[in-house]
Amino acid sequence: VSDVLRGGASGVLRGVSSWQAEADVVVVGLGCAGACAALAAAARGARVLLLERSSAGGGTSALSGGLVYLGGGTPVQKACGFEDDPENMARYLLAACGPAPDEAKIRHYAEHSVEHFHWLSSCDVPFRASFHPGTGIEPPTDDGLIFSGSENAYPFCEIARPAPRGHCPARPGAAGGLLMERLIARIAVAPEVRVESDARAEALVVAEDGRIVGAAVRRAGETFCVRARRGLVLAAGGFIQNRAMVARHAPALLRCKIRIGCEGDDGSGILLGMAAGGAAMRLDAGSISLPFYPPEGLKRGILVNGAGQRFINEDAYYGRVGEQALLRQDGRAFLIVDEAVHERPMAGMEVAAVGESAQELEHELGLPAGSLQATLRLYNEHASRGEDPLFHKRGAYLKPLVDMPLGALDCTVDHAIYAAFTLGGLHTDLDGRVLDAADRPVPGLFAAGRTTSGLAAQGYSSGLSLADGSYFGRRAGAAAAAEVV
Amino acid sequence: VSDVLRGGASGVLRGVSSWQAEADVVVVGLGCAGACAALAAAARGARVLLLERSSAGGGTSALSGGLVYLGGGTPVQKACGFEDDPENMARYLLAACGPAPDEAKIRHYAEHSVEHFHWLSSCDVPFRASFHPGTGIEPPTDDGLIFSGSENAYPFCEIARPAPRGHCPARPGAAGGLLMERLIARIAVAPEVRVESDARAEALVVAEDGRIVGAAVRRAGETFCVRARRGLVLAAGGFIQNRAMVARHAPALLRCKIRIGCEGDDGSGILLGMAAGGAAMRLDAGSISLPFYPPEGLKRGILVNGAGQRFINEDAYYGRVGEQALLRQDGRAFLIVDEAVHERPMAGMEVAAVGESAQELEHELGLPAGSLQATLRLYNEHASRGEDPLFHKRGAYLKPLVDMPLGALDCTVDHAIYAAFTLGGLHTDLDGRVLDAADRPVPGLFAAGRTTSGLAAQGYSSGLSLADGSYFGRRAGAAAAAEVV
Repeated sequence: VSDVLRGGASGVLRGVSSWQAEADVVVVGLGCAGACAALAAAARGARVLLLERSSAGGGTSALSGGLVYLGGGTPVQKACGFEDDPENMARYLLAACGPAPDEAKIRHYAEHSVEHFHWLSSCDVPFRASFHPGTGIEPPTDDGLIFSGSENAYPFCEIARPAPRGHCPARPGAAGGLLMERLIARIAVAPEVRVESDARAEALVVAEDGRIVGAAVRRAGETFCVRARRGLVLAAGGFIQNRAMVARHAPALLRCKIRIGCEGDDGSGILLGMAAGGAAMRLDAGSISLPFYPPEGLKRGILVNGAGQRFINEDAYYGRVGEQALLRQDGRAFLIVDEAVHERPMAGMEVAAVGESAQELEHELGLPAGSLQATLRLYNEHASRGEDPLFHKRGAYLKPLVDMPLGALDCTVDHAIYAAFTLGGLHTDLDGRVLDAADRPVPGLFAAGRTTSGLAAQGYSSGLSLADGSYFGRRAGAAAAAEVV
Repeated sequence: VSDVLRGGASGVLRGVSSWQAEADVVVVGLGCAGACAALAAAARGARVLLLERSSAGGGTSALSGGLVYLGGGTPVQKACGFEDDPENMARYLLAACGPAPDEAKIRHYAEHSVEHFHWLSSCDVPFRASFHPGTGIEPPTDDGLIFSGSENAYPFCEIARPAPRGHCPARPGAAGGLLMERLIARIAVAPEVRVESDARAEALVVAEDGRIVGAAVRRAGETFCVRARRGLVLAAGGFIQNRAMVARHAPALLRCKIRIGCEGDDGSGILLGMAAGGAAMRLDAGSISLPFYPPEGLKRGILVNGAGQRFINEDAYYGRVGEQALLRQDGRAFLIVDEAVHERPMAGMEVAAVGESAQELEHELGLPAGSLQATLRLYNEHASRGEDPLFHKRGAYLKPLVDMPLGALDCTVDHAIYAAFTLGGLHTDLDGRVLDAADRPVPGLFAAGRTTSGLAAQGYSSGLSLADGSYFGRRAGAAAAAEVV
């Protein structure tokens, strides 16, 4: 095999005739997408071999906050008194996940989200029927529901009836770990699924007729070939840890201090799929969070850019704020607060300057003369009437900034926490089939999770990656198991 | 062959054993990239077959304004009194063509741009040694040199010494046609080059060992296979005319009224390359022009967004203005002028509103109360001192807007001319070799022009496409001819 590998350094191997292991479905990667793919394939009666490159598994899913974006009227939403339905959920996602998100995936997911809630529950993933009034981040409590996007902020609150959809497994601060523990526990008792740890897929095996029929796997210094009789599912994460790939496709993300992703998010799954003929899409897209709140009260401040201008309603999801601050304002932003609004931000941004007047603060920040003064004058005038005609921040966060001194929290990309991960990946259909540049399936090849371009084409809300990873992971595993070869 | 084609609908054909035509180098597309590739291959002694899908050839190059971005100290630059050198040119392009443009391509091109000027001149492309003081657009005269980017605008004027680099062939209003006439005339007298018109490449032929060895070509209702003994060059344009592809990869461009590109810019060259294993990059990128000038005097107005805020120095290249207006301001922009500044814009934007005061104009435009008033107050205050600390417009265009009435020219994407073409494409090296997802050449396959991602990764200046098309077209043709098979 290693001879073959040397000859086939392009990520695909041809002419393999002997196998060291076999399964109906081979899954690459044990994050939420791979785990759900394996469980769904096993439920269809397939023998599954799950390859995980690390020793433990869990991937970025286990490290995450654990929010799963679910809606359309889940039992938790209902118990907490929120009305939602699939059409309403789809309206929000179509507006918030663009421009030009995958409408078919969004509509399908919105339609099946309640069913997916029940499936996750059936895997012993516990969601408490209690609402937490924070936003964006996972609750610090074991509450099960939170606003995890911009649902109740402009313009989305006018596009769809606001409903919280961030569903959080009940373990404060470690909900992603709990989610993966429960899924992995299910796998452990599924006789059809065998997990090989420390096993890294290095190439896909292609048959004469172009079908993907297995993978070359590296483990403990040796390479062996595993056969996938029905299909192979790539669920190996995104590429935020592959700096060269980020530089080429999504260079703005290089400026973000925090990379959200385990070591395995090095793009290997995407590159394997591309080598096999799969088309990648939206490789430029990323989730970019600027967690300038909590505390929630900091939303009463105003964010200004390098020209001293406001640029967004500050009550938007901080992933939307981070995206706009980085991509539209070149990563230059300050949160202006007054003495009454100022609190220590959880993410620890430093105070860039303090001033006894807008003029002094503007000068200290090196902003153009008069710019911040004009911005504050206009904002305060509107805020004193409970209005924000420029960006439509909600009344609860509108307060004239008049209690001196004023301060500026440093939200520039060079100093603040901008946390990023990639959203682009292989193009797949609703069954997780990897498509080529002309939208034809690559036979035998499936993918899910951040190895694919999923529900969010660009705009993000917390919980979408665990949502499309787990849901379309299930679809991919079931479709692979159902392949007739 | 049609049986083979039916079986190989994926854009590649395998198992072809008989050929209806042969050449050392096959070139797909007769725009500037294909023409220059053919001439360079012929100069290396190769027999060349050039396939053009239309009857006449010329492509988008012939329809274009004809500017070629050349610099580093060309004879025309020197005769017109402008100092430039390769390092200075590279500094501008690295700053203006990003984020994260291909540094190797930019440095190489800046180094060889004077040589390329002489090569084009040797093909009888005439550049008059006279400077036109306009900007952006090709001269309405037969002048040979013009500022065609943001070289003398902030921030670029502080990054590199401003020098005009838009070189225009001497035919007012039809310089692109002249350029292609001259190149095609060269081809007509090159005995090594045969042009097949009305011939469309439908698939690439792949040999057993993965090498690209030819193409399946459709002409007059029949399909035949042509063999490329040494190499095949894809020079088939971009994809602005493929609406599905634009929607998937660069959805913002769908909002632009004007598509710059001939019918052939349907992505077929890029898709053929991807089907053969080539990796595409920066498919999200596009050139987006908002020609709110000429007349140049309109730069004395100010552009404001939907919140009544300025967002750019109005003397920037209108391709930079269009990009920011669409991508950063959601396509909402108005050019505010006063009675003294107002002129009829060449691109015909309509007057959206008129007002006897800033307050009245703001109201008429539906801008937030007080917003435009604050913007004008601050701008006028600075402009009266000859300053623009917010966006650094040059003094020549700074004039307080105080001569009533005020007017707003409608620069919103729904009403004004936004003209777009795609910049993303196949990833190539300096010799035009098409690279796969792991940066390895696809053997036998080359590409140039807008079928590739070239000098401009995103930010654009006029003339860059004819520049990298013609220059890297030459490189691709020469490299293909030099292949030892």
